Amino acid sequence: MIRLLAATCAVALLAAPVVAADRVAEAGRLREAALATSAAYPLLESLTTEVGPRLAGSAAEARGRAWAVKAMTAAGLSNVHVEPFALVAWERGLETAEVVGPGAQRLVVTALGRSGATPAAGITAQVAYFADLQALKEAPAGSLKGKIAFIDHHMMRAQDGSSYGANNAVRTQGPAIAAAKGAAATLIRSLGTGNGRDPHTGVTQTPKGQVPGPSGALSLADADQLVRLVSRGPVTLKLVLTPRFTGTGQSGNVVGDLPGSAVPNEYVVIGGHLDSWDLGTGAIDDGAGMAITLAAAKAIKDAGLVPRRTIRVVFWGAEEVGGEGGEAFAAAHKTDAVVLAAESDFGADRVYRVSSRVAETGLPLVAEINRALAPLGIAPTKDNSAGGGADVGPLGALGAGILELEQDGSRYFDLHHTPDDTFDKVDKAQIDQNVAAYAVAAWLAASDERVLRAK
Amino acid sequence: MIRLLAATCAVALLAAPVVAADRVAEAGRLREAALATSAAYPLLESLTTEVGPRLAGSAAEARGRAWAVKAMTAAGLSNVHVEPFALVAWERGLETAEVVGPGAQRLVVTALGRSGATPAAGITAQVAYFADLQALKEAPAGSLKGKIAFIDHHMMRAQDGSSYGANNAVRTQGPAIAAAKGAAATLIRSLGTGNGRDPHTGVTQTPKGQVPGPSGALSLADADQLVRLVSRGPVTLKLVLTPRFTGTGQSGNVVGDLPGSAVPNEYVVIGGHLDSWDLGTGAIDDGAGMAITLAAAKAIKDAGLVPRRTIRVVFWGAEEVGGEGGEAFAAAHKTDAVVLAAESDFGADRVYRVSSRVAETGLPLVAEINRALAPLGIAPTKDNSAGGGADVGPLGALGAGILELEQDGSRYFDLHHTPDDTFDKVDKAQIDQNVAAYAVAAWLAASDERVLRAK
Repeated sequence: MIRLLAATCAVALLAAPVVAADRVAEAGRLREAALATSAAYPLLESLTTEVGPRLAGSAAEARGRAWAVKAMTAAGLSNVHVEPFALVAWERGLETAEVVGPGAQRLVVTALGRSGATPAAGITAQVAYFADLQALKEAPAGSLKGKIAFIDHHMMRAQDGSSYGANNAVRTQGPAIAAAKGAAATLIRSLGTGNGRDPHTGVTQTPKGQVPGPSGALSLADADQLVRLVSRGPVTLKLVLTPRFTGTGQSGNVVGDLPGSAVPNEYVVIGGHLDSWDLGTGAIDDGAGMAITLAAAKAIKDAGLVPRRTIRVVFWGAEEVGGEGGEAFAAAHKTDAVVLAAESDFGADRVYRVSSRVAETGLPLVAEINRALAPLGIAPTKDNSAGGGADVGPLGALGAGILELEQDGSRYFDLHHTPDDTFDKVDKAQIDQNVAAYAVAAWLAASDERVLRAK
Repeated sequence: MIRLLAATCAVALLAAPVVAADRVAEAGRLREAALATSAAYPLLESLTTEVGPRLAGSAAEARGRAWAVKAMTAAGLSNVHVEPFALVAWERGLETAEVVGPGAQRLVVTALGRSGATPAAGITAQVAYFADLQALKEAPAGSLKGKIAFIDHHMMRAQDGSSYGANNAVRTQGPAIAAAKGAAATLIRSLGTGNGRDPHTGVTQTPKGQVPGPSGALSLADADQLVRLVSRGPVTLKLVLTPRFTGTGQSGNVVGDLPGSAVPNEYVVIGGHLDSWDLGTGAIDDGAGMAITLAAAKAIKDAGLVPRRTIRVVFWGAEEVGGEGGEAFAAAHKTDAVVLAAESDFGADRVYRVSSRVAETGLPLVAEINRALAPLGIAPTKDNSAGGGADVGPLGALGAGILELEQDGSRYFDLHHTPDDTFDKVDKAQIDQNVAAYAVAAWLAASDERVLRAK
């Protein structure tokens, strides 16, 4: 019934231009139509099944772009195209860790993204334990020579994912710090929650001029095991990690538009990132973001709504390895008037809260969006300092308004960057709610004329 | 307080032999003391940390026996010894599975126990899908030539684990049936619950005279993925499984006694199995059974109680690969008067129900045990036809009475035979409840004189 109603309205709307008073009512119908249509779930099933994992710079990521062009075209977007860019490509090799000596046993490890490699035969070395990153920083220069540094931390489950931000320097900076102090290799407790045996990968950063050392993450259960072993006395590990940098690789952003009727050169950008880590199939990170935002645009199109401003869907490449896609997109479009940008990159669970960063003149429009999202159980915040995430951050730095539809991250870090990031973890009702939220927000922003850009 | 009270009683009891009226009261004190002492948890921590996985016939299983001798001795058992036996040893090799062609991606696979091997370079073959074992059985002879058979099934979560029994022929018999019809290899949906990415191993059986073919289990998430892929059209997989049989290996049962004062040659046998699969650390399967039963015997000893009959703790070797330990123990002790036998081999979650198989004359004693267990939330059943499990089953066949303290298996098959069977999954309060139950049951049976044996 709801879909029929929306379709009827769509016909009426195609016949006459949208007037201001219609916009809010139309947003309500759009919200219900998006909930009823469930378009994101089959898109995500298709992507994660037919393409699977999509490591940045790989042939699989390229297949993901081909999938995306097809999916955007099928959804009725115009101007569908790929904007390619180059990147430093890296791929995973063998990865094993074993305790050597009387308590001989395997530990589950995975290489961090852009990790260096051990010799093919591995290294055998004693573990130096650090309770947190600060303890590692306080270790004297040269004191880790020939050792495997292990960096622990204390990440907790949090709905807003704040504990990830507080701890992720362990992964992004820890290995380079340990290597600079002489460590032969670095292991970290996986940056994640839960107590599974799946390790969490993720990129580690190496300052220019320093050669990346071998670095890996133990699963949370294996990190616990190592802590118990270390508490009993010295532990020696044999570690094999043979990832490699494979030279210059190709990535790309995929773009498609719902063209604006009045000001087509003003853009409301929504999207997610196309690449994923290689261990899972990139369902929650970030196939979900792609499926949610494309389904939202499709819902607007299927309702026959024509926005004043262009709604642009972007699937960024190479987010995981360093945010190259977001940087490349912002650089290529730095003169475009991106009015508002919103990325979905925090799983497929429900949106519970909205924050923004828009010009004063745009706050009444944000309030209007908040009212239209309230029936989905989404609460407004007074926060008008949102950062927007890795892919839209660079657009925000150029002046774009930012909207964050904040998702419930309570279970996100159980799965994030692990082999367990697969389609079966996605809850259909929750992903539908995301689609409705994006459709409503994009429609209200794109059918309005108030200024949202900060500069 | 409770511990002090028990200790005081113990002194009194050491001074005077136990009289019938004391037994039930003593069982109540023992129950509370066992709960308060929490002895199983540190035993299990020690075993799973210091020994880790304990594959039947491996050096690690031998280290497990050394650990067990030490632990039994430290717990105050007498006559602690190993009863060695030989077995056909097998060990895991490489294991990878990948979809070949446009949807190229890895699937997570693990070899089934006692599987044969593919060539080192693997095999590449088309998948033949069977919705269940019956569908495979109905496939014509020779029809699987050159194919990889995939056998699906429909196991469900169940508190009593009944769905495992109903489906496990998929694993134990399926691969040999497929091989007999010409299959180059067999894959099964892991016999388990949940939706993780960890595959569930477990033994597969090959009839005498047939050479074991390569066979493996896909994780539940990967089985779902294969089903989705197969629904789109033919699927070709490249499969590498290189386990090998390593000749005659050594295993053994570890035995320790709390000697009976009146009839030391009558035995109440309690125990768990010492071997585990190699993927996890054998915490719930079956380090927990070892820790529970040893802690129960220790609780009786620490309370200063001296049973009439001998309480014998047995840690069976090589249960997982074919129940060789249980068979060897029964054969070696076929003339022993085992009055009652109870094994703990269903995880570490709480006991919720009791069943038995004892002579009519023993039913009042079982009722007494049930009354003493009721404060732990454990319900009696009228079932007096309990089988007792793989390790005590052979004793039951020789006439021993059987007691089953049935554990809650609701989450057992999420972890069973996977890498995720690790110490962190064990709930301290629940394992304590198990210890109390075993202590009470063993004490009441061993301080009584009623006949329990069926013959």
